[in-house]
Amino acid sequence: MDVEIIAIGSEVLEGHTVNTNAAFLSRELTLMGYEVKRHSVYPDQTEAIEQGFRDALSRAPLVISTGGLGPTIDDLTRGAARNIFDQEIPLTNSIGAASGSFIHAPHQAMNLLTGVPREMEEMFRNEAKPQIARYFPLKHPRLCRVSSLCLLKEVEVDPFLRELQSKFPENEIGIYPSQGSLLIEFSGLHASPLDEMVAALQSRFSTYFFTSPSHKIAEALHKELIARSKTVALAESCTGGAIAARLTALAGASRYFLGSLVVYSNPFKEHFLQVSRTTLEREGAVSRKTVEAMIKGVFHETSADFAIAVSGIAGPDGGTAQKPVGTICIGIGERGRFIDIGTVQAPTDRASAIEWTVQTSLGALWRRLVHHKQTFS
Amino acid sequence: MDVEIIAIGSEVLEGHTVNTNAAFLSRELTLMGYEVKRHSVYPDQTEAIEQGFRDALSRAPLVISTGGLGPTIDDLTRGAARNIFDQEIPLTNSIGAASGSFIHAPHQAMNLLTGVPREMEEMFRNEAKPQIARYFPLKHPRLCRVSSLCLLKEVEVDPFLRELQSKFPENEIGIYPSQGSLLIEFSGLHASPLDEMVAALQSRFSTYFFTSPSHKIAEALHKELIARSKTVALAESCTGGAIAARLTALAGASRYFLGSLVVYSNPFKEHFLQVSRTTLEREGAVSRKTVEAMIKGVFHETSADFAIAVSGIAGPDGGTAQKPVGTICIGIGERGRFIDIGTVQAPTDRASAIEWTVQTSLGALWRRLVHHKQTFS
Repeated sequence: MDVEIIAIGSEVLEGHTVNTNAAFLSRELTLMGYEVKRHSVYPDQTEAIEQGFRDALSRAPLVISTGGLGPTIDDLTRGAARNIFDQEIPLTNSIGAASGSFIHAPHQAMNLLTGVPREMEEMFRNEAKPQIARYFPLKHPRLCRVSSLCLLKEVEVDPFLRELQSKFPENEIGIYPSQGSLLIEFSGLHASPLDEMVAALQSRFSTYFFTSPSHKIAEALHKELIARSKTVALAESCTGGAIAARLTALAGASRYFLGSLVVYSNPFKEHFLQVSRTTLEREGAVSRKTVEAMIKGVFHETSADFAIAVSGIAGPDGGTAQKPVGTICIGIGERGRFIDIGTVQAPTDRASAIEWTVQTSLGALWRRLVHHKQTFS
Repeated sequence: MDVEIIAIGSEVLEGHTVNTNAAFLSRELTLMGYEVKRHSVYPDQTEAIEQGFRDALSRAPLVISTGGLGPTIDDLTRGAARNIFDQEIPLTNSIGAASGSFIHAPHQAMNLLTGVPREMEEMFRNEAKPQIARYFPLKHPRLCRVSSLCLLKEVEVDPFLRELQSKFPENEIGIYPSQGSLLIEFSGLHASPLDEMVAALQSRFSTYFFTSPSHKIAEALHKELIARSKTVALAESCTGGAIAARLTALAGASRYFLGSLVVYSNPFKEHFLQVSRTTLEREGAVSRKTVEAMIKGVFHETSADFAIAVSGIAGPDGGTAQKPVGTICIGIGERGRFIDIGTVQAPTDRASAIEWTVQTSLGALWRRLVHHKQTFS
C-alpha cells in the first residue's frame, strides 16, 4: 500500500532545517510493509498545504504530515486537513505541546504529526503506528530482516549476496554502506526464507555479523561490554575524542567506559601515556610504534580491560609520500595479551577519515571482545 | 524567482538516506535571492521522474535535481530530462565519477546534480551556481545578512528584534535557535538598511555576537585561537569527548588544541587531574569544586593557555532532587587568572544535554578569549 510523506515548514525550504522526519517515517513505514512513494515539502501557506494534501490523497490512501502544528499556525495545517476529512482522532504528544491528529474517511487517512523530531518519533511510535496498522491492515505485508556487517566493504560481500539472491529469487536484497559498516536488508512475503538468508549471512561472515536496534556498531559493542562486565579506555589522536563521544552518547556508558586520553599534541602523548620522544621523533606520531606505546600507556595508567589507540593523518594537510592523508594506525589491546595493530587507509576527506576511523576501531574492538579475533595483524 | 528541488532515489524513500542535499541547496539558493517553493523525492522509476520534472517545470522556471546519475541508472534521469529539453551543458564533477548537467530552454532550466553530498556541494558551488546566476539574473535580488549570537535564548533577543522590525519594516527578520546558539537572518532588497540592522544587533549584544562561514561557534573560536596564538586543553566528563571532537573536526586544530582529558570515571579524574577523592566524595563529581579542581589539574599537567572543564548529569539516569538530570557544571579558565564557574540547567534528554553543553562551553570560552568576559560567575 502506498504512502506519501509531507513536511510543512518554510524553515525546511530555506535550508535551516534538514528534513530528518521524512527519513525516520520512511524507515518505520517500510519496515511495517508499506511503500513510501513520495516526500514533499510545502511552505507555511494554507493554499499550498491544502492543495498538497489533496494531490497526495489522490495518489495514496495514507498521507502523513509533519510540522505546522505549533500554536501559531495550528489552525492552518489542521484546517487544511479538516476541509478534506470529517473525523478526527487526536494523538497524544507525550513530550511537547503540539498534539497530532489521525483524520480519516473510508479507505483514506491522514496523520498530522508535530515537526519536532524527538516528539514526532514518540508520537508516531506510541500512537500513530498502531492506528495505521489497525486502519490499514496488510493482507500480505512485506517482511524485513535487517543485519549489519562491520569492517567489510561492499565488494567483499557482493559475490555472496549474488549467490544468495539466486537461491532466494523471490526475496529482495538491499545493501547500504556507511563509513566502514554495511547494512544488509532482506525483504519478502514469507518469514522462513528471510530467516534462512539471515542465518546464511551470519554463517558466512560470522565474526563481522551483528544486529542492534540502531544498526550501529557502537551500540552492539556497548551492550557486549556491559554484558561481559569489561571496561575500556581510549587513547585518541586523529579522532580527537570522536570515539569517546560515540560511546558516551549511549546511556549507561559509565558502566564500562573509564575515559579517553585525547592526546592530540605530542607533549600530551609523552606526558599522559609515556610515549617516548625518541619514538615520536624516529617513527613519527602516526606509526605502529607510537600506537603500541599509546596502548601500553593506557594499560599502565588505568585499570582498563581493553584499550583502543588511534593516530593518523585526517588531512587535508600533513600528508607525505610515505604517509599520505588518510593513513591511520589503529591498535586494539586486551590487558596482558597481544596488541592487534595495523596501518590502514581511510577516505581522504577529513570528516570521512574521522568517521571511518571511529567505526573501524569500534568494529575491531567488538570482534576482539566477542570473537577473540585480530583484525589488523 | 521560484525554484523547486527534486531528489531521486529509493534509498531516500526507504529512509536509508536523509535528504541533506535539499537543505544545502535551499540554503544556497535562498542566499542567492531565489525562492525555494517545494522539495520532492521520487523513486528510481522513469515515469515517476519524468512526470515529477514536468510538474515542477510547470510551476517553476528552475528545477534542480540530485541523485540518479550513477553509471547504472544514468540514462534514466538524464533521459527523462532530455525528453523535455533540447540543450545540455555538462557540469564537471571534480571529485567523483558522475557528472551533472545544466539543461535549458528559453526561460526554463534544470540542473541535474550527483546525489553524493560532498560531490554535489562542490559541483553546485563551482559550476551550477555561476550558471544559474548568469541564466536567471535577478533584477531585485533579495539580500541576506546572517549573524549569530552565542549563549543567548530566543526570549532574551526577541524584544530587541521586535524593536528592530518596527524601525526597519521593509526587511524581514528570521531567528533560528539551535542548542545554545541563535542564528539571526536579516533579508531585504537594499544593502544599507540590512547593514544597519547587523550593526545594531552587534552593538546591542556585542560580547555574544559572532559571524563565521558555518555560523558555528566552534569555527569562530577556532579562528580566534589561531589568530591570537593561544592554546587550549580540556577536561571533559559528561560531554565524553564531544567538545574535543567538535574542535578537531576543523582542519588546523593542532595549531591550538593540545588535547582533552576525557575523565568519565572518578579514578580518571583523580589520576590524570589530581581531583581529590575527598572532593569527589563530599561534593560529588558534578560540583563546582570538582570542576575547579579539573581546571587546576589541566593547568598543572599541561602548558595550555586556556582550559574548559565540564561535569554534569546527561541522563536519563543519575539525577537527584538536588542535582536533577541536565545539571551541568562548566568552568572556563585562563592560566594565572580567575576561573569562571557556573552550574547551569541543560535540556533533559541526553543528546540535547551533551550538544547544549558543547555549545555553551565553547561560547563561554570564545567570550572569555575575545571579550575577556565571564559568563557563569
